[in-house]
Amino acid sequence: MTKPLLQLALDHTSLPEALEAVKVLHPYIDIIESGTILCVSEGMKAVRELRALYPDHILVCDLKVADAGEMLATEAFNAGADWMTVICAAPLATMASAQKVAAARNCEIQIELFGHWTIEDAKEWVKLGITQAIYHRGRDAQASGQTWGQKDLDLMKQLSDVGIQLSVTGGITPEDLHLFRNISVKAFIAGRALAQAPDPAAAAKEFHQAINDIWGD
Amino acid sequence: MTKPLLQLALDHTSLPEALEAVKVLHPYIDIIESGTILCVSEGMKAVRELRALYPDHILVCDLKVADAGEMLATEAFNAGADWMTVICAAPLATMASAQKVAAARNCEIQIELFGHWTIEDAKEWVKLGITQAIYHRGRDAQASGQTWGQKDLDLMKQLSDVGIQLSVTGGITPEDLHLFRNISVKAFIAGRALAQAPDPAAAAKEFHQAINDIWGD
Repeated sequence: MTKPLLQLALDHTSLPEALEAVKVLHPYIDIIESGTILCVSEGMKAVRELRALYPDHILVCDLKVADAGEMLATEAFNAGADWMTVICAAPLATMASAQKVAAARNCEIQIELFGHWTIEDAKEWVKLGITQAIYHRGRDAQASGQTWGQKDLDLMKQLSDVGIQLSVTGGITPEDLHLFRNISVKAFIAGRALAQAPDPAAAAKEFHQAINDIWGD
Repeated sequence: MTKPLLQLALDHTSLPEALEAVKVLHPYIDIIESGTILCVSEGMKAVRELRALYPDHILVCDLKVADAGEMLATEAFNAGADWMTVICAAPLATMASAQKVAAARNCEIQIELFGHWTIEDAKEWVKLGITQAIYHRGRDAQASGQTWGQKDLDLMKQLSDVGIQLSVTGGITPEDLHLFRNISVKAFIAGRALAQAPDPAAAAKEFHQAINDIWGD
């Protein structure tokens, strides 16, 4: 199983603050994510600036697209994103049109899993050529006390089994990572756990240490 | 039944082009919508500029929020929006946190209906104090040939009956409006049908004429 990557989610409303966080953390992360909040506040300028500053990182534009897949994928990839998210509730036609734009540029679409979806849906995504999804214990769900449980892990395993690589997010800590040892994990995504840590670099290193301990160096 | 309003959706990637469209159409519309594409391209600057230029129109920020309801609602309403959209697949906690921000400012949340949702979900939204939804024949669904049918109209009627006012969108024409005479319609939303009409003002007047013919002056 491929070793999971570490993704920094930038959930700032201000681009200068987001850039400050990446400046400190970029040597310790594999993927930079322009979070929905940052994209909404600053528009695609955020993605363009991150691309210009960090040409070698994988760059994710977390738009959670629900319609107009072709136009939004074009915006995101023109701005320099490598991956763009589409919400699982989007019509298949939206996913297909986004995936078409992505595939033509060697970019990728990630399905953001929220609310209602089924393994049958996931099989349709794979048929479209989409092989990544984000398993998200949402900020609000998290705040209302929902935790990682066997139900989450079983669903993730089923997704792995149909060919979906998962990025896992939502208040995740290095101590949680062992829970996901049987899952096809593309990346662990952390935002505030990295950017707001007393020592962000040390926090990132703890994640990598845990990843190496479980998945091997 | 209240007379439906007319909403102009700005689905431009460039703010100057969007502003050009509103400049021509603003005397003939009730609601200005900063569409998802415009919000994504230009960020909340688009909403701020529209608010400054058109202080008396209802202004919608179509973010299709899927998480972080409180933060994104705060962004949208701080920028000057009156209404903000949340995707139906968002967790109830996200809807609740967005609605809390909205209610404190006399603003409103609209649920964007995409993919899987049920009337039971709609009842939960109403319990939260959310009484608007957008019934969307999506751009991609539309392109792939899905049309307004009895199934749509029956679902809309059921939503009306549980206390949800609907804004209706997706390639709608003045000739379609009679289909919705038994529905609680808040607004008809048109984008390209207005902005890209040979005579945008005349196109808007045709919508108003059809609304007046059906719902009375």
